[in-house]
Amino acid sequence: MIVVKVGGAAGVEYDTVCADLAQLAHDKQPWVLVHGGSHETNEVAAQLGHPPEFVTSVSGYTSRRTDRRTIEIFEMVYCGKTNKGIVERLQKLGVNAVGLSGLDGRLLEGPRKGALKVVDEATGKRRVIRDDLTGKVERVNVDLLRLLLDHGYYPVISPPAISTDSDAINVDGDRAAARIAGALAAEALVILSDVPGVMSAFPDPASVIAEIPRDRIEHAQEHYAQGRMKIKLLGGAEALDEGVQRVILGDSRGEGPIRAALDGKGTVLK
Amino acid sequence: MIVVKVGGAAGVEYDTVCADLAQLAHDKQPWVLVHGGSHETNEVAAQLGHPPEFVTSVSGYTSRRTDRRTIEIFEMVYCGKTNKGIVERLQKLGVNAVGLSGLDGRLLEGPRKGALKVVDEATGKRRVIRDDLTGKVERVNVDLLRLLLDHGYYPVISPPAISTDSDAINVDGDRAAARIAGALAAEALVILSDVPGVMSAFPDPASVIAEIPRDRIEHAQEHYAQGRMKIKLLGGAEALDEGVQRVILGDSRGEGPIRAALDGKGTVLK
Repeated sequence: MIVVKVGGAAGVEYDTVCADLAQLAHDKQPWVLVHGGSHETNEVAAQLGHPPEFVTSVSGYTSRRTDRRTIEIFEMVYCGKTNKGIVERLQKLGVNAVGLSGLDGRLLEGPRKGALKVVDEATGKRRVIRDDLTGKVERVNVDLLRLLLDHGYYPVISPPAISTDSDAINVDGDRAAARIAGALAAEALVILSDVPGVMSAFPDPASVIAEIPRDRIEHAQEHYAQGRMKIKLLGGAEALDEGVQRVILGDSRGEGPIRAALDGKGTVLK
Repeated sequence: MIVVKVGGAAGVEYDTVCADLAQLAHDKQPWVLVHGGSHETNEVAAQLGHPPEFVTSVSGYTSRRTDRRTIEIFEMVYCGKTNKGIVERLQKLGVNAVGLSGLDGRLLEGPRKGALKVVDEATGKRRVIRDDLTGKVERVNVDLLRLLLDHGYYPVISPPAISTDSDAINVDGDRAAARIAGALAAEALVILSDVPGVMSAFPDPASVIAEIPRDRIEHAQEHYAQGRMKIKLLGGAEALDEGVQRVILGDSRGEGPIRAALDGKGTVLK
């Protein structure tokens, strides 16, 4: 079993990702795809008069400020245009894909954060946000995924998740993919983004770190990871801790991005 | 088996529909829900700078002019906000709902229309549109629906469908629901909208026709049906022809709309 996460940054090449997934399906290799949609959500939110806001937690992770209207716009882009666009691409390639959010069949469930402790980046002041619709995935409905996979359907999954009170909640896609990979006891979790891996001298692509052992991930987070790579390393560590054999932080750009990652291109965590 | 279709007009009360569906699920009555999203699609399309256009076919049915950008906006509202909003409501009521579009698992498949013959309502002139992404459902993936139902999941379905060439295509929701009801050999198809039924003296609610036998549906279409009721009668006739025992054209407004329809309130086709 392979779990692939593809981000939602500007210029993500879904066509090459889907071509690789079709080849894997053709080779009888089961997989689950998890995708994002952040860049387009920002654009649509702005067009709909509800521009995105981001907050930085006291532990240094950046996340989308998520009120009810944001969840609806988020669902429009992630579960609507992006998810169905990927399903359509895969169907064109002969893959019987089924798109699901974390709400469907309670696929991705977990607690909503009661309070979000954030830091104002300009002033450095701390404040607490209590009405944010964010949380984290603690349970994956593996039965539903296996039911689909056993009957020839390939799951294409996106946030939001569902809270224990059945509210739609925004969760981090990389960490959701890590949970899914862990729950499925996947051999590999491939996390693709628009950089070639973890770089020791960001943004020099020649400085990509080929391998980071589990016990050096926190060190890499602290010293090398920039921006979103920090949370990808956190997700990667969580996947390894749940028994995933290896996590590859690969490049979504260029031909054959999943194949390249499975061949060890990028940063391998193990 | 009961198939329920709820439209996407302004002011649709999803809460009362979902409350009825939860009661049916509690009573071990299997069902499938099909929903629309037209009103909100119009609003979002306008906000995103791609205002809706409608065309009238030479046979007198009105449909949405659907180019690629329209399909994407359509997916945002139907498959994103509306579908996930309904799934979330049902989950809150303890129903393990799973939202699907016609693309997912090729749930709703059929030919794309090669040419759409339309009439310009202002001038009466006829013209042919060749790039429209519309079509009709000819095959329903009953196996996928039964797989979900047999494992305790309740399907919540929305267009688009998938063409034989695997393009997303806009299809009429009422006729899609009729196909689903036929494929599942449903006892009843309940089509809810914002009118109390077929009225012999539209819009007088006292003139609702209680029952229309199959062989009088075309007559009712010609003489009584206004606006969207015309295509609902077409869908109803198709459902009866495929073996559905009865079709109820009921009112989505007020408490207990599905219960009321199943009790015979509205116009019953049989």
